[in-house]
Amino acid sequence: MKAIVPYKIKGGKSRLSPFLSPSEREKLAEHMLDDVVSTLSGLEVSIVREEGLNAVLNKIIVNSTEPVLIIMPDLPLISVEHIQDIISSKEDVVISPGRGGGTNILFLRSPSTFRVDYHGASFLKHLQIAKDKGLLTRVYESFYASCDIDEVDDLAELIIHGLGKAAEYLRSIGVSLQIMSGRARVKR
Amino acid sequence: MKAIVPYKIKGGKSRLSPFLSPSEREKLAEHMLDDVVSTLSGLEVSIVREEGLNAVLNKIIVNSTEPVLIIMPDLPLISVEHIQDIISSKEDVVISPGRGGGTNILFLRSPSTFRVDYHGASFLKHLQIAKDKGLLTRVYESFYASCDIDEVDDLAELIIHGLGKAAEYLRSIGVSLQIMSGRARVKR
Repeated sequence: MKAIVPYKIKGGKSRLSPFLSPSEREKLAEHMLDDVVSTLSGLEVSIVREEGLNAVLNKIIVNSTEPVLIIMPDLPLISVEHIQDIISSKEDVVISPGRGGGTNILFLRSPSTFRVDYHGASFLKHLQIAKDKGLLTRVYESFYASCDIDEVDDLAELIIHGLGKAAEYLRSIGVSLQIMSGRARVKR
Repeated sequence: MKAIVPYKIKGGKSRLSPFLSPSEREKLAEHMLDDVVSTLSGLEVSIVREEGLNAVLNKIIVNSTEPVLIIMPDLPLISVEHIQDIISSKEDVVISPGRGGGTNILFLRSPSTFRVDYHGASFLKHLQIAKDKGLLTRVYESFYASCDIDEVDDLAELIIHGLGKAAEYLRSIGVSLQIMSGRARVKR
């Protein structure tokens, strides 16, 4: 089974820029990628460029004869158990939503019958595509799988729940929790 | 089994004030409460005042001889299945985290051995209290159970995933998704 991880080598995570320097953002992204890849043991992992993502992925899946797992590289809270649970699903398509309508993990049992449409509210688009093609779909709703680390407030989730390299790195550069009356946020 | 729902009758949901009027916030809060209570069928539901929450809850649980479920009233995405899964857990304590370290759902099999400590990063505090008391704990991590509707951006989750009265109400007052390059947010 193939796992595909879209990744932006340089200049990613720009929405963390009010809080982390360019080199810190790059290191955090690398550690998050490490955390994600470490959950994919036993799968054939390919890392693809994030630029032109839909065209790149659709070119891959149209000719795929084996199941494909597409997973974002900024999900440092996922574990081997999440991945095993997702890829052992009986449904044709498994979609794990992120905050704000994103698709954080997409599992395609018969990839060649599907077309991906990332960006915007891709969760809703992927549900619709599966429905239009008559594919059985499972929504895999997990808090940890929903936590893509894109915005400064997301870093709090990594500090609170993280056990991997990305969380360790954040703590090592002095990021800690700011406890307030509402949600905890981060400070340095 | 007893289910306790802390609720602020008047003036709640103030962090939604940039987007919803006072009467709209009050109606949304009522619909969310309805959605939550509808998942608790078969349980004896008590609604308690949100003011002085810890003292109120600790007074109740110290004398409880049966299991107690404490659930926040702003979780319109939870379903009967979540509740059944939580209350059938074998562990002494089940904690379901919200964004920013909150405790959205807390299940206590032997309530009198526990003390609650809501506000701030209560998820971490409740984990620690359970550990200190030698209680077996399950972290029930669910995206839908994590979605407490407190801030304007949270409304997008309700529009995207909601199937109940609160989502229907939001749509009826003209709230819809604003699809952007990052996460979808709401507009009217």
